Amino acid sequence: MPHPSTSRLSPLRRDAVWDVRARQTVAYEVVLTGDLLDPAHDSLARAGIPAGTPTPTRRCVVTEQTIDDLYGDRLRAYFEAHGIDVHWLVLDSGEQNKGMEAVLRAVAAFDAFGILRRQEPVIAVGGGVLTDIVGFACGMFRRGLPHVKVPTTLMGLVDAGIGAKAGVNHAGGKNRIGCYHPPRATLLDPAFLDTLPDRQISNGLAEILKIALVLDAHLFDLLEEFGPLLRAERFQGHTADGERAADEVLRRAIGGMLAELEPNLWEHELERAVDYGHTFSPAVEMHALPALLHGEAVAVDMALTTVISWRRGLLGTAQLDRVLAVMTSLGLPTSHAVCRADLLTDALADTVRHRDGRQRMPLATDIGSAHFVDDVTVDEVRGAAAHFHDSRNR
Amino acid sequence: MPHPSTSRLSPLRRDAVWDVRARQTVAYEVVLTGDLLDPAHDSLARAGIPAGTPTPTRRCVVTEQTIDDLYGDRLRAYFEAHGIDVHWLVLDSGEQNKGMEAVLRAVAAFDAFGILRRQEPVIAVGGGVLTDIVGFACGMFRRGLPHVKVPTTLMGLVDAGIGAKAGVNHAGGKNRIGCYHPPRATLLDPAFLDTLPDRQISNGLAEILKIALVLDAHLFDLLEEFGPLLRAERFQGHTADGERAADEVLRRAIGGMLAELEPNLWEHELERAVDYGHTFSPAVEMHALPALLHGEAVAVDMALTTVISWRRGLLGTAQLDRVLAVMTSLGLPTSHAVCRADLLTDALADTVRHRDGRQRMPLATDIGSAHFVDDVTVDEVRGAAAHFHDSRNR
Ligand SMILES: NC(=O)c1ccc[n+]([C@@H]2O[C@H](COP(=O)([O-])OP(=O)(O)OC[C@H]3O[C@@H](n4cnc5c(N)ncnc54)[C@H](O)[C@@H]3O)[C@@H](O)[C@H]2O)c1
Ligand SMILES: NC(=O)c1ccc[n+]([C@@H]2O[C@H](COP(=O)([O-])OP(=O)(O)OC[C@H]3O[C@@H](n4cnc5c(N)ncnc54)[C@H](O)[C@@H]3O)[C@@H](O)[C@H]2O)c1
Repeated sequence: MPHPSTSRLSPLRRDAVWDVRARQTVAYEVVLTGDLLDPAHDSLARAGIPAGTPTPTRRCVVTEQTIDDLYGDRLRAYFEAHGIDVHWLVLDSGEQNKGMEAVLRAVAAFDAFGILRRQEPVIAVGGGVLTDIVGFACGMFRRGLPHVKVPTTLMGLVDAGIGAKAGVNHAGGKNRIGCYHPPRATLLDPAFLDTLPDRQISNGLAEILKIALVLDAHLFDLLEEFGPLLRAERFQGHTADGERAADEVLRRAIGGMLAELEPNLWEHELERAVDYGHTFSPAVEMHALPALLHGEAVAVDMALTTVISWRRGLLGTAQLDRVLAVMTSLGLPTSHAVCRADLLTDALADTVRHRDGRQRMPLATDIGSAHFVDDVTVDEVRGAAAHFHDSRNR
Repeated sequence: MPHPSTSRLSPLRRDAVWDVRARQTVAYEVVLTGDLLDPAHDSLARAGIPAGTPTPTRRCVVTEQTIDDLYGDRLRAYFEAHGIDVHWLVLDSGEQNKGMEAVLRAVAAFDAFGILRRQEPVIAVGGGVLTDIVGFACGMFRRGLPHVKVPTTLMGLVDAGIGAKAGVNHAGGKNRIGCYHPPRATLLDPAFLDTLPDRQISNGLAEILKIALVLDAHLFDLLEEFGPLLRAERFQGHTADGERAADEVLRRAIGGMLAELEPNLWEHELERAVDYGHTFSPAVEMHALPALLHGEAVAVDMALTTVISWRRGLLGTAQLDRVLAVMTSLGLPTSHAVCRADLLTDALADTVRHRDGRQRMPLATDIGSAHFVDDVTVDEVRGAAAHFHDSRNR
């Protein structure tokens, strides 16, 4: 006679498999605008707040020392004018401070503020270092706080501030830890560039040049023609030409970058044209730190890989000369003393790990287009590096 | 006459807006199986490796001290039999070690191993603490390494190991920092439970009871009837009833949990039935640490909120008594000395922040169903807590 209790039990089955399938949709706005800090405008106060929802009366704003020095009064006046009580966190500026310690300072600020999980987007105002730190901190706090990015450097406007990636350097590795955490919105106001040091303008131009080289020949022409003017005017449009050049260059750079990022926001595809200049540069930047800025390291990498293309016959000598000349006219380096063969070899090996076991190296095949290769040899890298040492020694 | 250069420039436009939209699809398998460490089977070696792709010859395996002591030899023999060269990391066991330091130890191990970004899924073998640490470390390393979870506790089998959430305690906050990072696969082998201390079995039963209370009255009946047998047999099925009960309880618990998680994997919806017992428990657990285990803190919270339901007339006295009696028969506490009114009030306030400004508190309306409320008062919480103090003092 069966035990009475068994009536409640179903017959025993063997292995069970559950297939979990889920889909996440992400949407955010990148807005190129002006007068962001003018209290008459509410775009900053309302960014990331759904239509029909009241403006939160308190916010956490994270910025960096340089921005606080230059724009702190205007930022404070802005939020005061909008009746918003701000909990401020001012982080130290600089790539050397881009680490887990800064991330945890932001986490502590969110905690101290008692931030609500979804309805009080954190506002990050600063360069790529600051927005990367805050993006990562927001990504991890309660597994994700919304945030709004307000890039204040050219690098931030055209690259660091507009995508979904965030992260910090760790144990000598460039952006070794981080996450994909898209902002609710990014507000781009070129007026911030007015106070940006010349070298930082050139630094941002490196990422614009990258987009030009792999995607947009017309953008390259514009940089060739107007680069010096844009540098001189710091994208403030003091002349009619300068104004139109700044406008068109920014739009093409941002639009080109976003067109590449949008279909591959989580980098499922590891062959990324926008990785041009990012094969050797992570290690070069970390080893040269603080001598080379991020965009300068990218420029050094682009020069090197352009020479590799040229040595392979993918680019003619005239094209090579044009690229290197534009780099110089943009105030960018084409080589650096740390670029010894051993460092470049190690750099490539680490990038191969980052690209899951293959080089997937974008090489320019023309100005404005690139293809991917997996077969760059140590000798080629050495040969390309020697190109610059030799030309320096001439 | 226009300046010749202007021909290259488009006319100046004003504000530009880019709408970025992207969609991410996630798919993973949760497999309830047996004989996982039998070298004759390849499910562990192949988990997370796409069909048609060769089995990687090297892997990073992260486990915890307790598991290394109990299963280290079998794990080593398993991977050796499959010709897999393993880079081991053994973390300290225990909730007190669930912090950023452990996450960064895992990050350092991935770095030292030189892990490839996509094709070498990390294998995490251990309790919920271990899988949460490794999940977060994998989530952040190069913005996301794949991983496979092998939970070894009942809590892991029915809850911690099967979802997408990962994270660690920070600055006194329970799972304050973390991410959503689904595994490629989770392998559940109840054989691990054979070595689990009795108290840890009860701990896991708390989360099964949670599913029963809010979603599955039949599961509650099974716990009521077979709970003591499941505890005695540690889900090893020594008797025919015990075997069938273990099988059905695990399937219902896992299936019920996944049915709740799957449509809300990133917690866009903050009203979550599976948050039953998780309103006061995060603070209770952290304050009582190490006196209360996670599931025990959840049980204390469930007892408290069940009393709140009863005091509101949502549950009858017979139902209340049944729930509390099952808790006791499962070896779970219903109260703890840290549950003073001030702590409970602070706990609720922090959970309100976690739930974006509202309580969204699931309250049982019957055994097997719940609804959400936003209006639980401090007096009610105090009254419910007194229920246990009074009954203790009787
Ligand atoms: N997340 C991404 O997708 C992404 C993309 C590209 C670059 N990045 C990261 O961005 C960082 C580089 O960004 P960056 O070039 O903006 O560097 P940065 O943030 O260090 O800023 C450069 C310098 O300019 C200062 N500064 C910022 N705004 C200013 C202003 N308006 N006026 C005067 N000074 C100002 C800063 O204090 C700093 O000293 C790197 O760490 C890089 O890894 C991230
Ligand atoms: N990510 C999620 O969705 C989620 C869900 C629920 C719980 N959690 C987390 O899980 C944690 C609790 O998990 P837990 O209950 O597994 O605790 P735990 O990981 O601390 O394991 C409990 C104890 O059992 C030991 N142990 C593990 N496996 C064993 C075995 N087979 N035999 C003998 N001893 C063994 C461990 O060393 C530990 O001492 C909490 O930190 C909680 O926050 C996470």
